[in-house]
Amino acid sequence: MLTSIILAAGEGTRMKSKLPKVLHKICNKPMVNYVIEAAHKANLNKNILIVGHGGDKVREAVKNENVEIVKQPIGEEFPYGTGYAVMQAKDHIKENSYVIILYGDTPLITSETLTKLIEFHKSGGYNATVLTAEFEDPTGYGRIIRDENGNVTEIVEHKDATDKQKEIREINSGIYCFDGKYLKSVLDKLDNNNAQGEYYITDAIKILNEEGCKIGGYKIEDKVEIAGVNSKVQLAEAEAVMRRRINEKLLMNGAIMIDPSSTYIDSDVKIGKDTVIYPGVIIEGNTEIGEECVIGHNSRIVDSKIGDRVNIQSSTIIESEVDNDTNIGPYAYLRPNSKIGKSVKIGDFVEVKNSTIGDKSKASHLAYIGDAEVGKNVNIGCGVVFVNYDGKVKHKTIVEDNAFVGSNSNLVAPVIVRENGYVAAGSTITEEVKSGALSIARARQFNKEGWVEKKNLQREEKK
Amino acid sequence: MLTSIILAAGEGTRMKSKLPKVLHKICNKPMVNYVIEAAHKANLNKNILIVGHGGDKVREAVKNENVEIVKQPIGEEFPYGTGYAVMQAKDHIKENSYVIILYGDTPLITSETLTKLIEFHKSGGYNATVLTAEFEDPTGYGRIIRDENGNVTEIVEHKDATDKQKEIREINSGIYCFDGKYLKSVLDKLDNNNAQGEYYITDAIKILNEEGCKIGGYKIEDKVEIAGVNSKVQLAEAEAVMRRRINEKLLMNGAIMIDPSSTYIDSDVKIGKDTVIYPGVIIEGNTEIGEECVIGHNSRIVDSKIGDRVNIQSSTIIESEVDNDTNIGPYAYLRPNSKIGKSVKIGDFVEVKNSTIGDKSKASHLAYIGDAEVGKNVNIGCGVVFVNYDGKVKHKTIVEDNAFVGSNSNLVAPVIVRENGYVAAGSTITEEVKSGALSIARARQFNKEGWVEKKNLQREEKK
Amino acid sequence: MLTSIILAAGEGTRMKSKLPKVLHKICNKPMVNYVIEAAHKANLNKNILIVGHGGDKVREAVKNENVEIVKQPIGEEFPYGTGYAVMQAKDHIKENSYVIILYGDTPLITSETLTKLIEFHKSGGYNATVLTAEFEDPTGYGRIIRDENGNVTEIVEHKDATDKQKEIREINSGIYCFDGKYLKSVLDKLDNNNAQGEYYITDAIKILNEEGCKIGGYKIEDKVEIAGVNSKVQLAEAEAVMRRRINEKLLMNGAIMIDPSSTYIDSDVKIGKDTVIYPGVIIEGNTEIGEECVIGHNSRIVDSKIGDRVNIQSSTIIESEVDNDTNIGPYAYLRPNSKIGKSVKIGDFVEVKNSTIGDKSKASHLAYIGDAEVGKNVNIGCGVVFVNYDGKVKHKTIVEDNAFVGSNSNLVAPVIVRENGYVAAGSTITEEVKSGALSIARARQFNKEGWVEKKNLQREEKK
Repeated sequence: MLTSIILAAGEGTRMKSKLPKVLHKICNKPMVNYVIEAAHKANLNKNILIVGHGGDKVREAVKNENVEIVKQPIGEEFPYGTGYAVMQAKDHIKENSYVIILYGDTPLITSETLTKLIEFHKSGGYNATVLTAEFEDPTGYGRIIRDENGNVTEIVEHKDATDKQKEIREINSGIYCFDGKYLKSVLDKLDNNNAQGEYYITDAIKILNEEGCKIGGYKIEDKVEIAGVNSKVQLAEAEAVMRRRINEKLLMNGAIMIDPSSTYIDSDVKIGKDTVIYPGVIIEGNTEIGEECVIGHNSRIVDSKIGDRVNIQSSTIIESEVDNDTNIGPYAYLRPNSKIGKSVKIGDFVEVKNSTIGDKSKASHLAYIGDAEVGKNVNIGCGVVFVNYDGKVKHKTIVEDNAFVGSNSNLVAPVIVRENGYVAAGSTITEEVKSGALSIARARQFNKEGWVEKKNLQREEKK
Repeated sequence: MLTSIILAAGEGTRMKSKLPKVLHKICNKPMVNYVIEAAHKANLNKNILIVGHGGDKVREAVKNENVEIVKQPIGEEFPYGTGYAVMQAKDHIKENSYVIILYGDTPLITSETLTKLIEFHKSGGYNATVLTAEFEDPTGYGRIIRDENGNVTEIVEHKDATDKQKEIREINSGIYCFDGKYLKSVLDKLDNNNAQGEYYITDAIKILNEEGCKIGGYKIEDKVEIAGVNSKVQLAEAEAVMRRRINEKLLMNGAIMIDPSSTYIDSDVKIGKDTVIYPGVIIEGNTEIGEECVIGHNSRIVDSKIGDRVNIQSSTIIESEVDNDTNIGPYAYLRPNSKIGKSVKIGDFVEVKNSTIGDKSKASHLAYIGDAEVGKNVNIGCGVVFVNYDGKVKHKTIVEDNAFVGSNSNLVAPVIVRENGYVAAGSTITEEVKSGALSIARARQFNKEGWVEKKNLQREEKK
Repeated sequence: MLTSIILAAGEGTRMKSKLPKVLHKICNKPMVNYVIEAAHKANLNKNILIVGHGGDKVREAVKNENVEIVKQPIGEEFPYGTGYAVMQAKDHIKENSYVIILYGDTPLITSETLTKLIEFHKSGGYNATVLTAEFEDPTGYGRIIRDENGNVTEIVEHKDATDKQKEIREINSGIYCFDGKYLKSVLDKLDNNNAQGEYYITDAIKILNEEGCKIGGYKIEDKVEIAGVNSKVQLAEAEAVMRRRINEKLLMNGAIMIDPSSTYIDSDVKIGKDTVIYPGVIIEGNTEIGEECVIGHNSRIVDSKIGDRVNIQSSTIIESEVDNDTNIGPYAYLRPNSKIGKSVKIGDFVEVKNSTIGDKSKASHLAYIGDAEVGKNVNIGCGVVFVNYDGKVKHKTIVEDNAFVGSNSNLVAPVIVRENGYVAAGSTITEEVKSGALSIARARQFNKEGWVEKKNLQREEKK
């Protein structure tokens, strides 16, 4: 049995935030969820999350994850420290299990590393294994002392290290794999007789070693994985690493990015081959984009499904469904619950909300289409407003196939424009437009000659 | 007394610009102003700025700073060189002062370094102290020669250095701290008997050393501080360093940035805790943003005051005041002199200019609100235009509480919509709308059946 | 005679793309075109391009380049390998020429390096010269073995290298300069008696060496130039290098960039001195921008000509011509075939298409100007639509000098507004507006008191 104990009780005062530390997000997902996911993917099937500060918020954030929550008592009367946190999970530790200690604020740890750590631990016959790393500058970290067989004999804290030991650049990551039996027994032997009055899980290594256990040290390949996030500077750094990982995976699958370092994509987004993503694009949530699309610069796509060969021009926002060969933007805003057909054009300064637009229809500029069903091959003129709100209630508009809605006209919902109906520019339509009929609702043009001079409104430049 | 002499007379031909070199901006502020600020913050209370090329423009740029301007004569008949520049300030140098030589084109120097330099100079009992740095590749720089006590005995220019001296990686930054008395006396002893015919302040070190003075060398921690800006490539590099400094400070105070390297914030901006700044955002000038706001990607905020929990969506521009819990954008443009209340919604493609908007009012899309007073809980429909300009003069519009202005209508200023007034969609309003009244100014709908076919305007697809 | 043989036949399966590998773009130009350009600039006047996979597409992409295409037979019955590719060009190799072997997927190679390589080859009297590079980690690369005179005696593949040879960090770039005579003769001696059954051009070096030829090794200064692009990750990396090169050149010529790493400019764009480019800007194609302009953040400029002192505000798109001192944006969209005069203002949410706008005219917000001739000093009000489309055909609108077009009005093309003509707000204009006349086409305002209460549309808040 593979178990993880994930420590997530810390307050994180250096984050300067009301939010519990482990709930700070990288690439739109709380840090702690990455750790849980890595554990799951490494087949750790029992995961214990130790919560403390902001425990209820943490519980809420992981409610869909396969974790058991254990609350660590927090307060002046209770001790602190990683050891005390792990003790809270004692009843959950099976003797015949392997237990990995993880941290809710090291979101970059990967399942691959956890799998290798477990494999190393098992195949080496260790009772406990420390995940270590080699640092250029190990100042401040606990050093790994190994014997002539390479087994770990001790972890010496920086402040306690001799000059000779300080030269060691292999450090303790704080992540361990234990045999459940040994971890369970050693928890009773931890004490907090130290300056801080805290219980340290590091001490478990020393105690087990003294008891004759075999302790391994597995050195991680990419040390960025063990980076803890303690400030918003480090949060941004972790986000940059995660962004690079996500984007490299998408590139390897065939997407094209002009500048991956300025492209912001959530981890669950899918993108087809040869789709080009311009810089400054944000793609969030549960979004799927087809092949050979262009996503213009500075666009934002959220929880959307985009077909193939869709051309999304610059500064466009999409939170909807868009079918193949359609052209959106620039500066278009497709709000949620909309469904845009094939070969449609939604142009600049157009908002679509809660509407369906049929194939080959066009709304090329400066229009608002809200709460509507628009058929196929419809032309929505410039400045057209679907007047869906009377100040109290929202109503629906239907525009049937092949209709033409002239510029700057209003369709006052509820109203229907029938097939082939034609609305004259500048009309406010309040009644049904019959099939093949022209509806016009505007005044005739009237001219007053000499009026500009009379009113003294000439625009000639002063000389 | 602490004095600075800041050299800012250079033309900077490699900048390829009409602007004097020291006026080129990083993070929206001329380089020279950063140097003056660093001097002020280090308690240098008398600051002499030596100007030359473009002296009037430089004088204008620093008119609000506590500096005295000294003009260096520029022209073929006058010599060049740092020494000649410092000589111009000779009358300002007090014998019992400490004098720091700075440069208008090294904007990254910090007050912390200047404070440490002065402290080092004073506590070591030096007559002059060179600010030095350790370079990986010191090629081209003057090398620092120290004696067995660590005192500086000489600065050897690269071209004059022996092979042995060329191995020295400690170089001269060009920044010095002098006892005023010694600086004053040594200025008379500089000469320009060299190939370039220039006076060099470096020679002062050699002369003072020969006179038996004690010369210190204070090595800077972060050598980026002494980087001079001589081209627009270096200008961009300095801007990147300054941007990182500004952003790290804001992050440490609790702001959140998805990608600090693509976030552009001026040095005086204030941002509250847990406010999230998306990538591509520019925040300029005298701006203050509250807590728990969201600043959507590619927005620009200039000289604005933003409350708490304000949600600014993507690609929004704000140059005004926005109160708590209000939602702005995407694609909204709040021009100067506007005041947006609490829980307001200003949506997409809406421009607000020189207007106040009361609490809970909404202008959700495609509207222009200019020169207006809009009350509370007002609904401004889509496509509404506040017609403030008659071709000669701008007029004002008032819309009182709870009014409803229907879509695509015009309010022709000067005009008033009274409380609870209701403007029908598509109306052009030129007279007062009475309280609780409907005002309608549009033609009735008229239908011509069969018109589309008659006019041959059918939109069916050709087969 | 200087000849290049450019290998461009590869499929590039790791690119995960339908496009032939060498047609993938960096900075908007296919990779292979950069290689051809570098060859041209280095005075290689005969250039043979070996195409294979997707050969027709490659031929199309280089149709305006001075290259001869040679098709390499592709298929299971034909062998593979660089040697086989070069053999295809055998008939094009002149005995008295110098022949450089290049690759369509190493787009960063510069003409300067090629020139130096040829010079080294000639002046050293070599029969063949290998372009080499020094790698920190040479794992996987062929190592360069030199004799005591520095001549290359052998290239040893990594897998065949002794431990001693593996320590050599000078590697083979795959780029060579050959005396035509020797290359021609050695091609017949290549074989494919190896595990892969491929012909390798590397073997030519071994064979020539055995025949007593003098082989040189010219070490490149900047090894990034020889980086091959085999995946979309590497494509993005190459784009970043090219972007840096383009931007540094523009900066050295006097342009200003706030953040060059987030500024995306094509290689042929020209930018005047002291023009400031904000972050997130894309400038593409055949664009020329004058001096002292401001290009606001997130703008995109394509195939445009921009004068001096033009102020382009944030999130603006321009695909047209803009004259001096004009102010465009924010959020303006100038589509192709437009010509904007001097001191014009095109403001927010304005689209201009296929139109000319005279000096000093203004369209400040929310307007669409399509297929129009607009004179000088015209005011186009907010929400104005040039109604150019009747559902079948596009028509033209003319607005003469000093005219005033009131807000939310429609100009239904074909139509003319004469000099000093004045269109009242909210009018739909279908007939000529005479010079100095007011044209009005709207209904009078009509008020129904007590209507809001009667209809139960009061907006007061529920308490």
